[in-house]
Amino acid sequence: MEQKSAPVGVFDSGVGGLTVAREIMRQIPNEKIIYFGDTARVPYGSKSQETVTRFSKQIVRFLQTFQVKTIVVACNTASAYALDELEKESEIPIIGVVKPGARVAAEVTRNGRIGVIATEATIGSQIYSQYIKELNRDVTIYGKACPLFVPLVEEGLWQDPVTDEIARRYLTELIDIDIDTLILGCTHYPLIRSTLGRIMGGDVTLVNPAYETARELKELLEEKGLLNEEPPKLGENQYQFYVSDGAEKFKRFANSIIKYGILSAKTINIEEY
Amino acid sequence: MEQKSAPVGVFDSGVGGLTVAREIMRQIPNEKIIYFGDTARVPYGSKSQETVTRFSKQIVRFLQTFQVKTIVVACNTASAYALDELEKESEIPIIGVVKPGARVAAEVTRNGRIGVIATEATIGSQIYSQYIKELNRDVTIYGKACPLFVPLVEEGLWQDPVTDEIARRYLTELIDIDIDTLILGCTHYPLIRSTLGRIMGGDVTLVNPAYETARELKELLEEKGLLNEEPPKLGENQYQFYVSDGAEKFKRFANSIIKYGILSAKTINIEEY
Repeated sequence: MEQKSAPVGVFDSGVGGLTVAREIMRQIPNEKIIYFGDTARVPYGSKSQETVTRFSKQIVRFLQTFQVKTIVVACNTASAYALDELEKESEIPIIGVVKPGARVAAEVTRNGRIGVIATEATIGSQIYSQYIKELNRDVTIYGKACPLFVPLVEEGLWQDPVTDEIARRYLTELIDIDIDTLILGCTHYPLIRSTLGRIMGGDVTLVNPAYETARELKELLEEKGLLNEEPPKLGENQYQFYVSDGAEKFKRFANSIIKYGILSAKTINIEEY
Repeated sequence: MEQKSAPVGVFDSGVGGLTVAREIMRQIPNEKIIYFGDTARVPYGSKSQETVTRFSKQIVRFLQTFQVKTIVVACNTASAYALDELEKESEIPIIGVVKPGARVAAEVTRNGRIGVIATEATIGSQIYSQYIKELNRDVTIYGKACPLFVPLVEEGLWQDPVTDEIARRYLTELIDIDIDTLILGCTHYPLIRSTLGRIMGGDVTLVNPAYETARELKELLEEKGLLNEEPPKLGENQYQFYVSDGAEKFKRFANSIIKYGILSAKTINIEEY
Protein backbone atom coordinates (compact mmCIF):
# COMPACT_ATOMS: atom_id res chain seq x y z
CA MET A 1 0.00 0.00 0.00
CA GLU A 2 1.31 3.44 -0.82
CA GLN A 3 2.25 5.23 2.39
CA LYS A 4 0.13 8.33 1.74
CA SER A 5 -3.04 6.36 1.25
CA ALA A 6 -2.44 4.15 4.30
CA PRO A 7 -4.87 4.64 7.18
CA VAL A 8 -4.26 6.41 10.48
CA GLY A 9 -4.68 4.21 13.57
CA VAL A 10 -6.55 5.75 16.51
CA PHE A 11 -7.19 4.05 19.83
CA ASP A 12 -8.77 4.67 23.20
CA SER A 13 -9.96 2.68 26.18
CA GLY A 14 -13.49 2.98 24.80
CA VAL A 15 -15.66 5.65 23.24
CA GLY A 16 -13.89 8.78 24.52
CA GLY A 17 -11.33 8.75 21.72
CA LEU A 18 -14.15 9.31 19.25
CA THR A 19 -13.91 13.02 20.11
CA VAL A 20 -10.36 12.85 18.69
CA ALA A 21 -11.42 10.80 15.66
CA ARG A 22 -14.18 13.37 15.01
CA GLU A 23 -11.62 16.20 14.95
CA ILE A 24 -9.39 14.24 12.54
CA MET A 25 -12.42 13.69 10.27
CA ARG A 26 -13.12 17.43 10.33
CA GLN A 27 -9.60 18.74 9.89
CA ILE A 28 -8.11 16.22 7.44
CA PRO A 29 -11.14 14.72 5.71
CA ASN A 30 -9.19 12.65 3.17
CA GLU A 31 -7.62 10.41 5.80
CA LYS A 32 -8.75 6.86 6.42
CA ILE A 33 -9.10 5.87 10.05
CA ILE A 34 -8.87 2.49 11.81
CA TYR A 35 -10.33 3.10 15.29
CA PHE A 36 -9.96 0.66 18.17
CA GLY A 37 -11.88 1.05 21.45
CA ASP A 38 -10.92 -1.30 24.29
CA THR A 39 -14.49 -1.66 25.54
CA ALA A 40 -13.79 -5.04 27.20
CA ARG A 41 -11.29 -3.43 29.58
CA VAL A 42 -12.54 0.15 29.84
CA PRO A 43 -11.90 2.31 31.88
CA TYR A 44 -8.12 2.82 31.94
CA GLY A 45 -8.18 5.88 34.23
CA SER A 46 -8.24 3.91 37.48
CA LYS A 47 -5.67 1.30 36.42
CA SER A 48 -1.91 1.06 36.91
CA GLN A 49 0.86 2.10 34.54
CA GLU A 50 1.97 -1.49 34.02
CA THR A 51 -1.51 -2.68 33.06
CA VAL A 52 -2.29 0.30 30.80
CA THR A 53 1.06 -0.15 29.04
CA ARG A 54 0.46 -3.86 28.44
CA PHE A 55 -3.02 -3.16 27.05
CA SER A 56 -1.68 -0.35 24.82
CA LYS A 57 1.05 -2.55 23.35
CA GLN A 58 -1.49 -5.18 22.36
CA ILE A 59 -3.56 -2.51 20.62
CA VAL A 60 -0.57 -1.09 18.73
CA ARG A 61 0.21 -4.61 17.48
CA PHE A 62 -3.42 -4.97 16.35
CA LEU A 63 -3.41 -1.61 14.52
CA GLN A 64 -0.14 -2.46 12.79
CA THR A 65 -1.85 -5.39 11.07
CA PHE A 66 -3.59 -2.69 8.95
CA GLN A 67 -0.26 -1.13 7.86
CA VAL A 68 -1.26 2.17 9.47
CA LYS A 69 1.10 5.06 8.65
CA THR A 70 0.82 6.61 12.11
CA ILE A 71 -0.96 5.96 15.40
CA VAL A 72 -2.82 8.44 17.57
CA VAL A 73 -3.12 7.46 21.22
CA ALA A 74 -6.52 9.12 21.71
CA CYS A 75 -6.61 8.43 25.44
CA ASN A 76 -5.02 10.68 28.02
CA THR A 77 -4.29 7.85 30.44
CA ALA A 78 -2.55 5.73 27.80
CA SER A 79 -0.69 8.81 26.54
CA ALA A 80 0.44 9.60 30.08
CA TYR A 81 1.49 6.06 30.99
CA ALA A 82 2.50 4.26 27.82
CA LEU A 83 3.59 6.68 25.07
CA ASP A 84 7.34 6.44 25.74
CA GLU A 85 7.25 2.64 25.73
CA LEU A 86 5.14 2.53 22.57
CA GLU A 87 7.49 4.89 20.74
CA LYS A 88 10.47 2.69 21.61
CA GLU A 89 8.87 -0.34 19.98
CA SER A 90 7.43 1.30 16.89
CA GLU A 91 8.89 2.30 13.54
CA ILE A 92 5.98 4.57 12.63
CA PRO A 93 5.26 7.88 14.39
CA ILE A 94 2.99 7.68 17.44
CA ILE A 95 1.41 10.79 18.89
CA GLY A 96 -0.51 11.21 22.12
CA VAL A 97 -3.11 13.73 23.22
CA VAL A 98 -1.16 15.16 26.15
CA LYS A 99 1.62 17.12 24.42
CA PRO A 100 -0.65 19.03 22.01
CA GLY A 101 -2.96 20.11 24.84
CA ALA A 102 -0.04 21.05 27.09
CA ARG A 103 1.54 23.17 24.35
CA VAL A 104 -1.58 25.22 23.73
CA ALA A 105 -2.25 25.71 27.45
CA ALA A 106 1.30 27.01 27.96
CA GLU A 107 0.73 29.47 25.10
CA VAL A 108 -2.69 30.84 26.02
CA THR A 109 -2.40 31.37 29.78
CA ARG A 110 -2.03 35.01 30.78
CA ASN A 111 -1.80 34.72 34.56
CA GLY A 112 0.31 31.52 34.59
CA ARG A 113 -2.29 29.46 36.43
CA ILE A 114 -3.42 26.38 34.52
CA GLY A 115 -5.90 23.77 35.70
CA VAL A 116 -6.00 20.18 34.44
CA ILE A 117 -9.01 17.92 34.93
CA ALA A 118 -8.56 14.24 34.10
CA THR A 119 -8.76 10.68 35.42
CA GLU A 120 -6.97 9.65 38.60
CA ALA A 121 -4.24 7.97 36.54
CA THR A 122 -3.51 11.01 34.35
CA ILE A 123 -3.46 13.39 37.32
CA GLY A 124 -1.32 11.00 39.36
CA SER A 125 1.22 10.77 36.52
CA GLN A 126 1.73 14.58 36.61
CA ILE A 127 2.39 14.35 32.89
CA TYR A 128 0.64 17.61 31.94
CA SER A 129 2.59 19.42 34.58
CA GLN A 130 5.85 17.96 33.30
CA TYR A 131 5.24 18.88 29.65
CA ILE A 132 3.98 22.39 30.42
CA LYS A 133 6.95 23.10 32.71
CA GLU A 134 9.32 22.12 29.88
CA LEU A 135 7.75 24.85 27.74
CA ASN A 136 7.25 27.50 30.37
CA ARG A 137 8.85 27.30 33.79
CA ASP A 138 6.85 30.25 35.13
CA VAL A 139 3.43 28.62 35.24
CA THR A 140 1.75 26.74 38.04
CA ILE A 141 -0.37 23.70 37.22
CA TYR A 142 -3.26 22.54 39.39
CA GLY A 143 -4.50 18.99 38.73
CA LYS A 144 -7.90 17.65 39.77
CA ALA A 145 -9.07 14.06 39.25
CA CYS A 146 -12.76 13.83 38.27
CA PRO A 147 -13.59 10.10 38.34
CA LEU A 148 -17.36 10.50 37.98
CA PHE A 149 -17.30 12.46 34.71
CA VAL A 150 -16.70 9.37 32.54
CA PRO A 151 -19.65 7.37 33.92
CA LEU A 152 -21.89 10.46 33.80
CA VAL A 153 -21.00 11.03 30.13
CA GLU A 154 -21.46 7.35 29.32
CA GLU A 155 -24.88 7.46 31.03
CA GLY A 156 -25.80 10.31 28.65
CA LEU A 157 -26.17 13.01 31.35
CA TRP A 158 -24.34 15.60 29.22
CA GLN A 159 -26.75 18.35 30.30
CA ASP A 160 -28.11 17.50 33.70
CA PRO A 161 -28.38 18.99 37.21
CA VAL A 162 -26.46 16.03 38.64
CA THR A 163 -23.55 16.61 36.27
CA ASP A 164 -23.72 20.31 37.20
CA GLU A 165 -23.53 19.47 40.90
CA ILE A 166 -20.64 17.03 40.52
CA ALA A 167 -18.80 19.45 38.22
CA ARG A 168 -19.26 22.26 40.76
CA ARG A 169 -17.71 20.11 43.50
CA TYR A 170 -14.75 19.12 41.36
CA LEU A 171 -14.13 22.60 39.94
CA THR A 172 -14.65 24.83 43.00
CA GLU A 173 -11.04 24.59 44.12
CA LEU A 174 -9.81 25.46 40.61
CA ILE A 175 -12.08 28.53 40.55
CA ASP A 176 -10.85 29.55 44.01
CA ILE A 177 -7.23 29.31 42.84
CA ASP A 178 -8.13 31.69 39.98
CA ILE A 179 -6.88 29.62 37.03
CA ASP A 180 -7.38 31.25 33.62
CA THR A 181 -6.90 28.10 31.51
CA LEU A 182 -8.44 24.65 31.94
CA ILE A 183 -7.25 21.58 30.06
CA LEU A 184 -9.95 18.97 29.42
CA GLY A 185 -7.51 16.15 30.09
CA CYS A 186 -9.78 13.21 29.28
CA THR A 187 -11.28 12.55 25.87
CA HIS A 188 -14.78 12.18 27.34
CA TYR A 189 -14.82 15.70 28.72
CA PRO A 190 -15.41 17.68 25.49
CA LEU A 191 -18.90 16.13 25.55
CA ILE A 192 -19.72 18.11 28.73
CA ARG A 193 -17.81 21.16 27.56
CA SER A 194 -20.79 23.51 27.84
CA THR A 195 -21.40 22.54 31.49
CA LEU A 196 -17.72 22.97 32.32
CA GLY A 197 -17.54 26.32 30.51
CA ARG A 198 -20.62 27.66 32.29
CA ILE A 199 -19.29 26.70 35.73
CA MET A 200 -15.78 28.03 35.11
CA GLY A 201 -17.10 31.31 33.65
CA GLY A 202 -16.24 33.19 30.47
CA ASP A 203 -12.78 34.34 31.60
CA VAL A 204 -11.36 30.82 31.64
CA THR A 205 -10.09 29.35 28.36
CA LEU A 206 -10.97 25.69 27.90
CA VAL A 207 -8.30 23.72 26.05
CA ASN A 208 -9.57 20.68 24.12
CA PRO A 209 -6.66 18.31 23.43
CA ALA A 210 -8.78 16.45 20.84
CA TYR A 211 -8.77 19.53 18.60
CA GLU A 212 -5.07 20.25 19.17
CA THR A 213 -4.10 16.62 18.54
CA ALA A 214 -5.84 16.56 15.15
CA ARG A 215 -3.98 19.78 14.27
CA GLU A 216 -0.66 18.23 15.34
CA LEU A 217 -1.42 15.08 13.33
CA LYS A 218 -2.06 17.21 10.25
CA GLU A 219 1.27 19.03 10.71
CA LEU A 220 3.12 15.76 11.23
CA LEU A 221 1.68 14.17 8.10
CA GLU A 222 2.48 17.33 6.09
CA GLU A 223 6.07 17.40 7.34
CA LYS A 224 6.66 13.75 6.47
CA GLY A 225 4.88 14.03 3.11
CA LEU A 226 2.29 11.53 4.28
CA LEU A 227 -0.90 13.56 3.96
CA ASN A 228 -3.48 11.75 1.86
CA GLU A 229 -4.20 14.04 -1.09
CA GLU A 230 -6.93 11.93 -2.60
CA PRO A 231 -10.48 11.86 -1.31
CA PRO A 232 -11.87 8.40 -0.52
CA LYS A 233 -13.07 6.39 -3.51
CA LEU A 234 -16.74 5.80 -4.05
CA GLY A 235 -17.88 2.86 -1.96
CA GLU A 236 -14.66 2.76 0.06
CA ASN A 237 -15.10 2.17 3.79
CA GLN A 238 -13.12 5.20 4.99
CA TYR A 239 -13.71 4.76 8.72
CA GLN A 240 -13.42 1.33 10.30
CA PHE A 241 -14.22 0.68 13.95
CA TYR A 242 -13.07 -2.24 16.08
CA VAL A 243 -13.80 -2.88 19.73
CA SER A 244 -12.95 -5.60 22.22
CA ASP A 245 -16.58 -5.95 23.33
CA GLY A 246 -20.14 -4.82 22.62
CA ALA A 247 -19.93 -3.66 18.99
CA GLU A 248 -23.64 -2.79 18.75
CA LYS A 249 -23.64 -0.66 21.89
CA PHE A 250 -20.46 1.07 20.73
CA LYS A 251 -22.05 1.81 17.37
CA ARG A 252 -25.07 3.45 19.00
CA PHE A 253 -22.91 5.65 21.24
CA ALA A 254 -20.52 6.48 18.40
CA ASN A 255 -23.36 7.58 16.18
CA SER A 256 -24.40 10.10 18.86
CA ILE A 257 -20.91 11.66 18.71
CA ILE A 258 -19.88 11.32 15.08
CA LYS A 259 -22.32 12.59 12.54
CA TYR A 260 -20.73 10.88 9.55
CA GLY A 261 -22.73 7.71 10.12
CA ILE A 262 -20.82 4.70 11.37
CA LEU A 263 -21.63 1.78 9.16
CA SER A 264 -20.17 -1.00 11.23
CA ALA A 265 -18.11 -1.91 14.26
CA LYS A 266 -16.51 -5.31 14.75
CA THR A 267 -15.57 -7.11 17.97
CA ILE A 268 -12.12 -8.72 18.16
CA ASN A 269 -10.26 -10.51 20.99
CA ILE A 270 -7.50 -8.02 21.83
CA GLU A 271 -5.84 -10.40 24.32
CA GLU A 272 -4.61 -12.44 21.34
CA TYR A 273 -2.34 -9.62 20.14
CA MET B 1 -4.73 -30.95 51.61
CA GLU B 2 -7.68 -32.32 53.51
CA GLN B 3 -10.90 -31.24 51.81
CA LYS B 4 -12.48 -29.69 54.92
CA SER B 5 -9.55 -27.40 55.56
CA ALA B 6 -9.25 -26.32 51.90
CA PRO B 7 -10.11 -22.68 51.21
CA VAL B 8 -13.23 -21.29 49.56
CA GLY B 9 -12.60 -19.33 46.34
CA VAL B 10 -14.55 -16.09 45.92
CA PHE B 11 -14.39 -13.81 42.91
CA ASP B 12 -15.85 -10.61 41.55
CA SER B 13 -15.08 -8.06 38.85
CA GLY B 14 -13.52 -5.88 41.54
CA VAL B 15 -14.33 -4.79 45.07
CA GLY B 16 -18.10 -5.41 45.11
CA GLY B 17 -17.72 -9.08 45.96
CA LEU B 18 -16.15 -8.08 49.26
CA THR B 19 -19.69 -7.62 50.59
CA VAL B 20 -20.13 -11.36 49.96
CA ALA B 21 -16.73 -12.25 51.44
CA ARG B 22 -17.67 -10.20 54.51
CA GLU B 23 -20.85 -12.23 55.01
CA ILE B 24 -18.92 -15.50 54.67
CA MET B 25 -16.44 -14.27 57.30
CA ARG B 26 -19.35 -13.47 59.63
CA GLN B 27 -21.44 -16.58 59.10
CA ILE B 28 -18.75 -19.27 58.80
CA PRO B 29 -15.73 -17.79 60.54
CA ASN B 30 -13.55 -20.91 60.36
CA GLU B 31 -13.37 -20.88 56.56
CA LYS B 32 -10.30 -19.76 54.66
CA ILE B 33 -10.95 -17.52 51.68
CA ILE B 34 -8.99 -16.90 48.48
CA TYR B 35 -10.53 -13.75 46.97
CA PHE B 36 -9.89 -12.58 43.43
CA GLY B 37 -11.00 -9.14 42.16
CA ASP B 38 -10.60 -8.51 38.43
CA THR B 39 -9.67 -4.85 38.90
CA ALA B 40 -7.81 -4.67 35.56
CA ARG B 41 -11.02 -5.36 33.64
CA VAL B 42 -13.70 -4.03 35.99
CA PRO B 43 -16.61 -3.31 35.44
CA TYR B 44 -18.33 -6.40 34.03
CA GLY B 45 -21.86 -4.94 34.12
CA SER B 46 -21.62 -3.20 30.77
CA LYS B 47 -19.85 -6.05 28.95
CA SER B 48 -21.14 -8.93 26.82
CA GLN B 49 -21.90 -12.50 27.87
CA GLU B 50 -19.06 -13.88 25.76
CA THR B 51 -16.48 -11.56 27.32
CA VAL B 52 -17.70 -12.01 30.90
CA THR B 53 -17.70 -15.80 30.43
CA ARG B 54 -14.13 -15.80 29.09
CA PHE B 55 -12.94 -13.64 31.98
CA SER B 56 -14.75 -15.85 34.53
CA LYS B 57 -13.21 -19.05 33.16
CA GLN B 58 -9.72 -17.59 33.53
CA ILE B 59 -10.48 -16.72 37.14
CA VAL B 60 -11.85 -20.18 37.96
CA ARG B 61 -8.63 -21.68 36.56
CA PHE B 62 -6.62 -19.30 38.75
CA LEU B 63 -8.61 -20.16 41.90
CA GLN B 64 -8.25 -23.89 41.23
CA THR B 65 -4.48 -23.56 41.59
CA PHE B 66 -5.21 -23.13 45.32
CA GLN B 67 -7.17 -26.43 45.51
CA VAL B 68 -10.28 -24.55 46.64
CA LYS B 69 -13.11 -26.82 47.79
CA THR B 70 -15.82 -24.62 46.30
CA ILE B 71 -16.12 -21.35 44.38
CA VAL B 72 -18.52 -18.48 45.02
CA VAL B 73 -19.20 -16.26 42.01
CA ALA B 74 -19.65 -13.08 44.07
CA CYS B 75 -20.67 -10.98 41.09
CA ASN B 76 -24.21 -10.78 39.80
CA THR B 77 -23.16 -10.18 36.20
CA ALA B 78 -20.82 -13.20 36.14
CA SER B 79 -23.46 -15.30 37.93
CA ALA B 80 -26.04 -14.26 35.35
CA TYR B 81 -23.85 -14.79 32.30
CA ALA B 82 -21.31 -17.46 33.11
CA LEU B 83 -22.49 -19.77 35.92
CA ASP B 84 -23.85 -22.52 33.67
CA GLU B 85 -20.66 -22.65 31.62
CA LEU B 86 -18.46 -22.63 34.73
CA GLU B 87 -20.44 -25.50 36.30
CA LYS B 88 -19.98 -27.59 33.15
CA GLU B 89 -16.20 -27.31 33.36
CA SER B 90 -15.74 -27.74 37.08
CA GLU B 91 -15.60 -30.77 39.37
CA ILE B 92 -16.10 -28.74 42.55
CA PRO B 93 -19.39 -27.00 43.44
CA ILE B 94 -19.78 -23.44 42.16
CA ILE B 95 -22.48 -21.17 43.53
CA GLY B 96 -23.59 -17.77 42.31
CA VAL B 97 -25.29 -14.87 44.05
CA VAL B 98 -28.43 -14.81 41.91
CA LYS B 99 -30.24 -17.98 42.99
CA PRO B 100 -30.01 -17.34 46.77
CA GLY B 101 -31.37 -13.80 46.34
CA ALA B 102 -34.11 -14.95 43.99
CA ARG B 103 -35.23 -17.67 46.43
CA VAL B 104 -35.61 -15.31 49.34
CA ALA B 105 -37.42 -12.70 47.27
CA ALA B 106 -39.92 -15.31 46.08
CA GLU B 107 -40.52 -16.28 49.72
CA VAL B 108 -40.91 -12.85 51.31
CA THR B 109 -43.09 -11.01 48.80
CA ARG B 110 -46.68 -10.58 49.93
CA ASN B 111 -48.19 -8.70 47.00
CA GLY B 112 -46.27 -10.60 44.29
CA ARG B 113 -44.46 -7.52 42.97
CA ILE B 114 -40.67 -7.78 43.13
CA GLY B 115 -38.17 -5.18 41.93
CA VAL B 116 -34.60 -5.97 40.89
CA ILE B 117 -31.91 -3.30 40.61
CA ALA B 118 -28.64 -4.30 38.99
CA THR B 119 -26.19 -3.59 36.17
CA GLU B 120 -27.33 -3.38 32.56
CA ALA B 121 -25.95 -6.86 31.90
CA THR B 122 -27.75 -8.53 34.81
CA ILE B 123 -31.05 -6.82 33.99
CA GLY B 124 -30.68 -7.61 30.28
CA SER B 125 -30.11 -11.29 31.06
CA GLN B 126 -33.49 -11.47 32.90
CA ILE B 127 -31.91 -14.10 35.11
CA TYR B 128 -33.60 -13.01 38.36
CA SER B 129 -36.95 -13.09 36.62
CA GLN B 130 -36.27 -16.58 35.30
CA TYR B 131 -35.23 -18.05 38.68
CA ILE B 132 -38.06 -16.39 40.60
CA LYS B 133 -40.66 -17.58 38.08
CA GLU B 134 -39.40 -21.15 38.51
CA LEU B 135 -40.20 -20.90 42.21
CA ASN B 136 -43.41 -18.90 42.01
CA ARG B 137 -45.26 -18.35 38.78
CA ASP B 138 -47.64 -15.81 40.33
CA VAL B 139 -45.19 -12.98 40.86
CA THR B 140 -44.27 -10.12 38.56
CA ILE B 141 -40.65 -8.95 38.40
CA TYR B 142 -39.64 -5.41 37.48
CA GLY B 143 -36.00 -4.91 36.52
CA LYS B 144 -34.19 -1.58 36.55
CA ALA B 145 -30.58 -1.05 35.46
CA CYS B 146 -28.72 1.47 37.63
CA PRO B 147 -25.35 2.02 35.91
CA LEU B 148 -24.27 5.00 38.03
CA PHE B 149 -24.48 3.23 41.40
CA VAL B 150 -21.17 1.38 40.98
CA PRO B 151 -19.10 4.50 40.20
CA LEU B 152 -20.87 6.47 42.96
CA VAL B 153 -20.05 3.72 45.49
CA GLU B 154 -16.45 3.48 44.25
CA GLU B 155 -16.15 7.29 44.60
CA GLY B 156 -17.16 6.87 48.24
CA LEU B 157 -20.47 8.77 47.97
CA TRP B 158 -22.30 6.22 50.10
CA GLN B 159 -24.25 8.95 51.92
CA ASP B 160 -24.58 11.90 49.62
CA PRO B 161 -27.28 14.14 48.08
CA VAL B 162 -26.08 13.19 44.57
CA THR B 163 -26.51 9.49 45.31
CA ASP B 164 -29.94 10.33 46.77
CA GLU B 165 -30.94 12.16 43.61
CA ILE B 166 -29.71 9.43 41.25
CA ALA B 167 -31.33 6.74 43.43
CA ARG B 168 -34.63 8.65 43.38
CA ARG B 169 -34.56 8.78 39.57
CA TYR B 170 -33.80 5.08 39.23
CA LEU B 171 -36.28 3.96 41.89
CA THR B 172 -39.30 6.18 41.18
CA GLU B 173 -40.82 3.79 38.67
CA LEU B 174 -40.42 0.87 41.09
CA ILE B 175 -42.18 2.88 43.83
CA ASP B 176 -44.97 3.80 41.40
CA ILE B 177 -45.48 0.12 40.52
CA ASP B 178 -45.90 -0.60 44.25
CA ILE B 179 -43.31 -3.36 44.65
CA ASP B 180 -43.00 -4.75 48.20
CA THR B 181 -39.61 -6.47 47.74
CA LEU B 182 -36.41 -5.09 46.21
CA ILE B 183 -33.42 -7.28 45.32
CA LEU B 184 -30.06 -5.51 45.53
CA GLY B 185 -28.83 -7.32 42.44
CA CYS B 186 -25.26 -6.00 42.37
CA THR B 187 -22.70 -6.67 45.08
CA HIS B 188 -21.87 -2.96 45.37
CA TYR B 189 -25.40 -1.99 46.36
CA PRO B 190 -25.42 -3.19 50.00
CA LEU B 191 -22.98 -0.32 50.63
CA ILE B 192 -25.76 2.20 49.83
CA ARG B 193 -28.43 0.11 51.49
CA SER B 194 -29.50 2.86 53.90
CA THR B 195 -30.08 5.33 51.05
CA LEU B 196 -32.04 2.75 49.08
CA GLY B 197 -34.09 1.78 52.14
CA ARG B 198 -34.96 5.39 52.95
CA ILE B 199 -36.11 6.12 49.40
CA MET B 200 -38.14 2.93 49.04
CA GLY B 201 -39.77 3.38 52.46
CA GLY B 202 -40.24 1.01 55.37
CA ASP B 203 -42.86 -1.20 53.68
CA VAL B 204 -40.43 -2.53 51.10
CA THR B 205 -38.19 -5.48 52.07
CA LEU B 206 -34.64 -5.16 50.75
CA VAL B 207 -33.08 -8.51 49.81
CA ASN B 208 -29.29 -8.65 50.06
CA PRO B 209 -27.99 -11.58 47.98
CA ALA B 210 -24.60 -11.33 49.72
CA TYR B 211 -26.19 -12.42 53.00
CA GLU B 212 -28.29 -15.16 51.39
CA THR B 213 -25.32 -16.48 49.42
CA ALA B 214 -23.20 -16.92 52.53
CA ARG B 215 -26.11 -18.78 54.11
CA GLU B 216 -26.41 -21.03 51.07
CA LEU B 217 -22.66 -21.66 51.09
CA LYS B 218 -22.86 -22.73 54.72
CA GLU B 219 -25.70 -25.15 53.93
CA LEU B 220 -23.83 -26.55 50.95
CA LEU B 221 -20.65 -27.17 52.96
CA GLU B 222 -22.66 -28.79 55.76
CA GLU B 223 -24.49 -31.08 53.33
CA LYS B 224 -21.27 -32.23 51.70
CA GLY B 225 -19.43 -32.59 55.01
CA LEU B 226 -16.97 -29.91 53.93
CA LEU B 227 -17.45 -27.33 56.68
CA ASN B 228 -14.16 -26.45 58.31
CA GLU B 229 -14.53 -27.35 61.97
CA GLU B 230 -11.17 -26.02 63.07
CA PRO B 231 -10.50 -22.36 63.69
CA PRO B 232 -7.50 -20.93 61.82
CA LYS B 233 -4.12 -21.68 63.34
CA LEU B 234 -2.13 -18.95 65.02
CA GLY B 235 -0.21 -16.99 62.39
CA GLU B 236 -2.10 -18.55 59.50
CA ASN B 237 -3.11 -16.16 56.71
CA GLN B 238 -6.81 -17.00 56.67
CA TYR B 239 -7.88 -14.46 54.04
CA GLN B 240 -5.82 -14.01 50.90
CA PHE B 241 -6.61 -11.37 48.30
CA TYR B 242 -5.50 -11.29 44.67
CA VAL B 243 -6.33 -8.69 42.04
CA SER B 244 -5.44 -8.15 38.40
CA ASP B 245 -4.40 -4.54 39.02
CA GLY B 246 -3.82 -1.93 41.70
CA ALA B 247 -3.28 -4.04 44.82
CA GLU B 248 -2.64 -1.04 47.09
CA LYS B 249 -5.79 0.80 46.05
CA PHE B 250 -7.79 -2.41 46.44
CA LYS B 251 -6.41 -2.91 49.92
CA ARG B 252 -7.46 0.58 51.00
CA PHE B 253 -10.99 0.14 49.68
CA ALA B 254 -11.26 -3.39 51.08
CA ASN B 255 -10.25 -2.19 54.53
CA SER B 256 -13.16 0.27 54.47
CA ILE B 257 -15.57 -2.63 53.89
CA ILE B 258 -14.05 -5.51 55.84
CA LYS B 259 -13.16 -4.80 59.42
CA TYR B 260 -10.97 -7.85 59.91
CA GLY B 261 -7.88 -6.05 58.65
CA ILE B 262 -6.60 -7.08 55.25
CA LEU B 263 -2.93 -7.77 55.54
CA SER B 264 -2.00 -7.98 51.90
CA ALA B 265 -3.27 -8.07 48.35
CA LYS B 266 -1.19 -9.30 45.42
CA THR B 267 -1.42 -8.39 41.75
CA ILE B 268 -1.33 -11.24 39.22
CA ASN B 269 -1.71 -11.33 35.41
CA ILE B 270 -5.07 -13.04 34.97
CA GLU B 271 -4.75 -13.16 31.18
CA GLU B 272 -2.16 -15.93 31.62
CA TYR B 273 -4.76 -18.35 33.03
